[in-house]
Amino acid sequence: MKIGVFDSGLGGLSILREIIKVLPDYDYVYLGDNARVPYGGRSDKVIYQFTKNAVDFLFKKNCGLIVLACNTASSMSLQRIQQEYLAKNYPDRRVLGVIKPAVEKVGELQAKRVGVIGTYATVNSKAFIREIKKVYPKAQIFQKACPLLVPIIEEGEIDWIGLKLILEKYLAPLKKKKIDSLILGCTHYGLIANKIQSIIGKDVRIITEGIETAIKLKDYLARHPEIEFKLLKNKAREFYVTDLNLRFLKMARFFLGKKFRNFKDLTFISI
Amino acid sequence: MKIGVFDSGLGGLSILREIIKVLPDYDYVYLGDNARVPYGGRSDKVIYQFTKNAVDFLFKKNCGLIVLACNTASSMSLQRIQQEYLAKNYPDRRVLGVIKPAVEKVGELQAKRVGVIGTYATVNSKAFIREIKKVYPKAQIFQKACPLLVPIIEEGEIDWIGLKLILEKYLAPLKKKKIDSLILGCTHYGLIANKIQSIIGKDVRIITEGIETAIKLKDYLARHPEIEFKLLKNKAREFYVTDLNLRFLKMARFFLGKKFRNFKDLTFISI
Repeated sequence: MKIGVFDSGLGGLSILREIIKVLPDYDYVYLGDNARVPYGGRSDKVIYQFTKNAVDFLFKKNCGLIVLACNTASSMSLQRIQQEYLAKNYPDRRVLGVIKPAVEKVGELQAKRVGVIGTYATVNSKAFIREIKKVYPKAQIFQKACPLLVPIIEEGEIDWIGLKLILEKYLAPLKKKKIDSLILGCTHYGLIANKIQSIIGKDVRIITEGIETAIKLKDYLARHPEIEFKLLKNKAREFYVTDLNLRFLKMARFFLGKKFRNFKDLTFISI
Repeated sequence: MKIGVFDSGLGGLSILREIIKVLPDYDYVYLGDNARVPYGGRSDKVIYQFTKNAVDFLFKKNCGLIVLACNTASSMSLQRIQQEYLAKNYPDRRVLGVIKPAVEKVGELQAKRVGVIGTYATVNSKAFIREIKKVYPKAQIFQKACPLLVPIIEEGEIDWIGLKLILEKYLAPLKKKKIDSLILGCTHYGLIANKIQSIIGKDVRIITEGIETAIKLKDYLARHPEIEFKLLKNKAREFYVTDLNLRFLKMARFFLGKKFRNFKDLTFISI
């Protein structure tokens, strides 16, 4: 069996890249639902439906374990997928998210005033607040939705003055709250972590999900040999997208980084 | 039979508003595919599939004539919908777009150097170039994709300095070409027409699709009594969306304008 990684678009490739750095030997299947990206502004009903479609597809592709490398899907659908869908249909398979790994880091850092930035859906779901309260109930949490960051990053406008201006606007209320750490609650944000750091201030600890998810996945497999022993280790990688166009191919290279420039062509699947 | 208006999101409501101003007596059915918005960055294959779904839905809702109030759908799918889908399945019904009305205005103005702004998909389709060449072959056309305008407008960041900066960036190459008219090739752009005018200069004629589409639809019905006589005139309005959430309800009010504040609740349909 393989490890599946799902994202609403291609931002999850940055999570996959970090996972492969830590666990290079396994076989990976990536699915990006870029025909229906972004999920961020959609209702929980629709997000659950889309996520279930994706999980179903990856199970059919022989994935024994799936990482929902999408904060919106993780925050809005993971619990229901685990409790309703898996329990009934696939009791021996696992679906994990990207929220818990970042949240556990908050506990390790013993952070007291935690900022969280993400899409509307992630922020409105209050998933980070709920999860942080479980792990580290003393922490105070301050959220801020940053809806324009994803389109700006996807446009490659990373050095544009407008990005700096909107970051100053979005981060101002968090600065005022004197946060000591900041969770980048969206896969895209890792790509502008240094810009976020320079605006929020160097004393604030930035928590990026890719690295934390990779570390926690390694721990998980060590603790669950009944899952681990079923996983193939041929270093195979498959990439599926629900829409294939030049702009997305360019973005795929951008997210995968230089090391992954020569990955095989993305495969189109109809939704 | 009713008049259907389709858009990938809610931007088409601004077109519907203009149509209702000119033709208030007819029955209208609006469909916004906001579960899968935006179409702008997607491939022609996926856009055709989504548009066909929408047309199908509106025909089932008893629409005899549909306006594709979405530039992406109009430019990528209208011709195929008319030639393949309608001809085969619904030879007595009609589907019109928003591109031709704006293009005919270019001919009326005898514009010589025409700018066109829109999404990636609209610009890459070259639909405006193709259509303008038919109507007015002497015109020179200069296109520019403006991918960040829709997310900024949908965030309501209309008075934000970043909008001015990105407009200056997007419009600079068109200013350099000394255009005499500018087609706003996206339903959203009508909402910032005055900002566009102030940056492109007061001598450039701005062509907005809503007004042109409404005028041309009135002409069309006058020329096609065989369609017109089938249309109901009870002033009924129905609104369907593929995703229902608070943010979209807020946007609906924003697009419909003050007069339409008390429209009935949007109806959710599953896609």
